[in-house]
Amino acid sequence: MKNVKFTIEYDGTNFAGWQRQVSERTVEGVIEKSLYKITGERIDLVGAGRTDAGVHAIGQVANFFTKSTIPGEKYKYALRFILPTDVSIVDSEEVDKDFHARFSATGKIYRYRIYTGRLPKALLRPYSFFFPFRIDYNLLERATEKFIGQHDFSSFMARGANSHNVFKTIRRFDIERDGDMVELIIEGDNFLRNMVRIMAGTAVYIGAGRIPLERLDTLLKGGRRDLAGPTFGPEGLYLEKVLY
Amino acid sequence: MKNVKFTIEYDGTNFAGWQRQVSERTVEGVIEKSLYKITGERIDLVGAGRTDAGVHAIGQVANFFTKSTIPGEKYKYALRFILPTDVSIVDSEEVDKDFHARFSATGKIYRYRIYTGRLPKALLRPYSFFFPFRIDYNLLERATEKFIGQHDFSSFMARGANSHNVFKTIRRFDIERDGDMVELIIEGDNFLRNMVRIMAGTAVYIGAGRIPLERLDTLLKGGRRDLAGPTFGPEGLYLEKVLY
Repeated sequence: MKNVKFTIEYDGTNFAGWQRQVSERTVEGVIEKSLYKITGERIDLVGAGRTDAGVHAIGQVANFFTKSTIPGEKYKYALRFILPTDVSIVDSEEVDKDFHARFSATGKIYRYRIYTGRLPKALLRPYSFFFPFRIDYNLLERATEKFIGQHDFSSFMARGANSHNVFKTIRRFDIERDGDMVELIIEGDNFLRNMVRIMAGTAVYIGAGRIPLERLDTLLKGGRRDLAGPTFGPEGLYLEKVLY
Repeated sequence: MKNVKFTIEYDGTNFAGWQRQVSERTVEGVIEKSLYKITGERIDLVGAGRTDAGVHAIGQVANFFTKSTIPGEKYKYALRFILPTDVSIVDSEEVDKDFHARFSATGKIYRYRIYTGRLPKALLRPYSFFFPFRIDYNLLERATEKFIGQHDFSSFMARGANSHNVFKTIRRFDIERDGDMVELIIEGDNFLRNMVRIMAGTAVYIGAGRIPLERLDTLLKGGRRDLAGPTFGPEGLYLEKVLY
């Protein structure tokens, strides 16, 4: 048995998310189907994280065990004309037997792209969230700084989601700007359902003067999803890197 | 009556091209439908050029006559939440009555994007042509230079297409490279059906050693579509600018 690790890029636009589902097109489902074609095995892929419908990935990671003799580093070439064009294996390699894409991860980096021009641009729309309003970047920066550290993030969790541990640590929350494009880079140990999208929505609403900065102190004590900002759209979100 | 000029960006992926068709989703059809909602008029849009299915535009131009009192420069704002997200009006203005998007044009600039990395990248796939083969850029440049000037371009016209004038002038054919992304910028007075895509396919095939450079002399005398390169995919093509 070999343990093979994939680094995966996908355009989430036409996927119902990462996780395999019986009647929906998912990234996991599509890769497993392609692996069946080249290995003849029913592979069970383990993904580092389950991205939602419409969310993109530049560096999603997954691993699987196989009896196939295909060398680990050859999968990326073997799959390149088999996979649909909206998923690509940007790297593949054989790894140690105890590597587990989810449990071995020590953190993740997400990127959230916001287009702040007054007029939307069609070629950017599936790849950034359209927010054509004035933002005070000083205020936005002060908001991002407050997130750093360990907090009860239950105010930043999708309603109805469950988690046995709502305490998460944010290590980095940076802002990069290039003209009207604003990117938020968030690194943390672990994330709750919709956490990055609600963090982005709350931080940007603070920057736009729609939520007072001081409210973050309340939010970061947990349990107040009702006072946090909106869940920004999946089209702006990228799983950029999984850390090991 | 006002004559209104639009500059239009669109993601061609989910369109059956520019030109209105009864049962297909087209850029022209979608804009006319949105204009009906805000003006109450059945508008007849005149586009500078008819792009094919899957072809993108950054600077398509169109004009139309209307009795509506909406000021020309307001259309871009009025339409921004009415149009589907894959079309956007990046500029709108009232112009002189004798402006005609097609007949007034003095030239067009197209951009053709080719991704030459060995492995495809999902997030680039609808926006560039995947060509994972070695290119001799010196040879490619010599090919592009031969196109400059006026020639019979019938070797670079879609089979079955018709044109009363196959003599066209290419003013510029530049190469821009950024890592594995190669962009061809082509400016000409006018273009035949599929002409840019066949020019890109032929120039790149020469650079890749699949077609001898000398064959261009024959091709540019006209009538030899059979000896030219392939029609590269619509996903790499952008109508960048219409010149007036």
